[in-house]
Amino acid sequence: MLEDLKKRVYEANMLLPKYRLVTFTWGNVSEIDKESGLFAIKPSGVDYDKLTPDDIVLMDLKGEKVEGKYNPSSDTPTHLELYKAFPKIGGIVHTHSSWATSWAQAGRGIPCYGTTHADYMYGEIPCARCLDKEEIESDYEKNTGLLIADLFKDKNYEAMPAVLCKNHGPFTWGKDGHEAVHNAVVLEEVAKMAARCEQINPRVQPALQELQDKHYYRKHGANAYYGQK
Amino acid sequence: MLEDLKKRVYEANMLLPKYRLVTFTWGNVSEIDKESGLFAIKPSGVDYDKLTPDDIVLMDLKGEKVEGKYNPSSDTPTHLELYKAFPKIGGIVHTHSSWATSWAQAGRGIPCYGTTHADYMYGEIPCARCLDKEEIESDYEKNTGLLIADLFKDKNYEAMPAVLCKNHGPFTWGKDGHEAVHNAVVLEEVAKMAARCEQINPRVQPALQELQDKHYYRKHGANAYYGQK
Amino acid sequence: MLEDLKKRVYEANMLLPKYRLVTFTWGNVSEIDKESGLFAIKPSGVDYDKLTPDDIVLMDLKGEKVEGKYNPSSDTPTHLELYKAFPKIGGIVHTHSSWATSWAQAGRGIPCYGTTHADYMYGEIPCARCLDKEEIESDYEKNTGLLIADLFKDKNYEAMPAVLCKNHGPFTWGKDGHEAVHNAVVLEEVAKMAARCEQINPRVQPALQELQDKHYYRKHGANAYYGQK
Amino acid sequence: MLEDLKKRVYEANMLLPKYRLVTFTWGNVSEIDKESGLFAIKPSGVDYDKLTPDDIVLMDLKGEKVEGKYNPSSDTPTHLELYKAFPKIGGIVHTHSSWATSWAQAGRGIPCYGTTHADYMYGEIPCARCLDKEEIESDYEKNTGLLIADLFKDKNYEAMPAVLCKNHGPFTWGKDGHEAVHNAVVLEEVAKMAARCEQINPRVQPALQELQDKHYYRKHGANAYYGQK
Repeated sequence: MLEDLKKRVYEANMLLPKYRLVTFTWGNVSEIDKESGLFAIKPSGVDYDKLTPDDIVLMDLKGEKVEGKYNPSSDTPTHLELYKAFPKIGGIVHTHSSWATSWAQAGRGIPCYGTTHADYMYGEIPCARCLDKEEIESDYEKNTGLLIADLFKDKNYEAMPAVLCKNHGPFTWGKDGHEAVHNAVVLEEVAKMAARCEQINPRVQPALQELQDKHYYRKHGANAYYGQK
Repeated sequence: MLEDLKKRVYEANMLLPKYRLVTFTWGNVSEIDKESGLFAIKPSGVDYDKLTPDDIVLMDLKGEKVEGKYNPSSDTPTHLELYKAFPKIGGIVHTHSSWATSWAQAGRGIPCYGTTHADYMYGEIPCARCLDKEEIESDYEKNTGLLIADLFKDKNYEAMPAVLCKNHGPFTWGKDGHEAVHNAVVLEEVAKMAARCEQINPRVQPALQELQDKHYYRKHGANAYYGQK
Repeated sequence: MLEDLKKRVYEANMLLPKYRLVTFTWGNVSEIDKESGLFAIKPSGVDYDKLTPDDIVLMDLKGEKVEGKYNPSSDTPTHLELYKAFPKIGGIVHTHSSWATSWAQAGRGIPCYGTTHADYMYGEIPCARCLDKEEIESDYEKNTGLLIADLFKDKNYEAMPAVLCKNHGPFTWGKDGHEAVHNAVVLEEVAKMAARCEQINPRVQPALQELQDKHYYRKHGANAYYGQK
Repeated sequence: MLEDLKKRVYEANMLLPKYRLVTFTWGNVSEIDKESGLFAIKPSGVDYDKLTPDDIVLMDLKGEKVEGKYNPSSDTPTHLELYKAFPKIGGIVHTHSSWATSWAQAGRGIPCYGTTHADYMYGEIPCARCLDKEEIESDYEKNTGLLIADLFKDKNYEAMPAVLCKNHGPFTWGKDGHEAVHNAVVLEEVAKMAARCEQINPRVQPALQELQDKHYYRKHGANAYYGQK
């Protein structure tokens, strides 16, 4: 079933080690097939250098496995809640990429200090609070998804395709798995430069709003003029 | 037309990923043909691993495309203004290289802390102010070029082949595209060491002027004795 | 004798340069054969690119060489004491990996700032004190092992498979040499992110105990549900 | 003449890019033939990927070129003074390696924070003052060598095979060119870990003298027991 989807999800997963976003098995990519309502995701704890398209697991939006010889990623319930909350997205990535995770551990959102950030993500990249004792002890991964959804209830999730989970790490998303990986790379680069920027100038302020608007909208929306579209 | 120029510009662009100065499509190199007054530049948003010499776009100094199937880099109007303001240069590079961009985001020029810097760039590498609302909202990329030109009106642009644009990133230049890339590599290395240097000694001062002079002039000008010339 | 053990120890040693945990010969892996009570370890000062399975040295738990043309690692007496003190472990790694060694030089344990840490190591990674003059001047390497054993006398060494030795560097362990290397990689990544995390937020606090428990126990013990077991 | 010497010096030079100690042509290695009193050194400004053994320049200790089609490194007079001042050394390296140069720019010696440092270098790695105006303007490179020699007049240059030159960068030495490169790698690693160590614990103190002695003397001198000697 959905062999193309599984192949795409396999390929998107293999981009994570290529872009050095994962150590060992610390990451996963999923992509949803809008027509069938099924999503494909990496199996849990399988090494990237042994992964094949056949290992990818198919899930439905009730959280039931539809196909696959392996257990899905332990983060599957988080992916599922995000697909339910963000109907326009098609792919999701979770990693422990080093710089983004350092910000998540620090419990801080990443201010928009420049155009690299503004080209892709509109405004400060938010950091979700840590779950509380009760949320952790029952349905931890599902509650992580619900918390992100709640944090974005007044935000445009298409203009901010990334979140940090406090003491944990980042999730990113996009129109498909590949775009979600692309955004995970951007996030890591932006996180690195924001940390260094604060070291170079501890009193640095976010970029002027007009500059943020300019760069975001030259790449997105009706008046975009970057690229070949 | 100008097949050699396009090939050189292609090759210079391909040095950016080789030297790890770009992520995705975040950079571009141009070179001008002084005789015809045309310059060649990377197309906008085209992946480096798909780029070919045929994809390079030819522009005139009025900003009109002379040849090429793609749109030129969105930063083309900045390149154009720099060619007009700096008649002795032959090539220009823009990147979002990590350390130089961190200084640009921090809004600080890079002091000359040592001979690595002084060997190539004479004095502090300047950081141009952020454009204001009006400058951003009309002809943003052209105004970026005009701002750099204005900043250098009392400076020797041959002795300082680099600038940081606040909240954005660096531009470098040189006698051709390859030298501009060379200077982009130097800038990134110098930016990295200056940040670490300030971390190691927060009260560090710029290098003695005589040392800066010595190193700059042993590589440049009539009395240079570095290398094989 | 024990050709399989020597081959495994050779392979585990070769992972150290692969994961960039060693410069030159600054690291070693050993593994013990529980049945015979012999352990295999890297020879002292032999370059990784010249190492072969035949070069691996076999030792008994009295510290006598049983087989091998070379001297064993100078850290062999430390390995020996750890095998005696921690009967359930099967492999040990010592490196001077950069971030873990920086924490060791700083004389600080690594607080648990997030789930990357909690997934593998339960609580703060301890830093053993520096040995005193007398301990250094007689049986230095043996005393290093005794000090670590003493530090862990009230700790669960299976739940904390890593230690920093002040002004020196890390040791990690596991059920075999490969797992000990795996833990050395985790330690280096965790050490890097903890340092950056404190830079991003100097007032950061360790992660909530419940979150630490959740992540540790979803991978370890009777109720683990991560992976394919 | 001295084809073996030139080949060894060529090979030692090629280790600099291999160990990522140089960008472009920012480094050089020399080695002396004690019998003839001639030393071989990299030509000035020649790219590492074009360098051949035939390009290596032979010099005598009066500073005259004995053989070679190219000019010798501009740092040749510094090498020459070091060979005269340190009769037991056989090879010298100069680089602008990033971390060591950051300490040099910061104008600070590198305290001995741990055993990685103590294994190779006995005590704090000294930082020579910046030359004054007069010293810079006449015979700059020679005066750099004289200054280092003066700084070491009460030091054991065999036990401390490295120096930082303020606002410039490091020199290292050894019994031959390869050992000098080895020490340049050690210096870079030690410089990196010392900077990170101070970031992790701003009040860190140098390692206990007894620990420094233990590690230095287990690798050096009559009672050394590290390795296979």
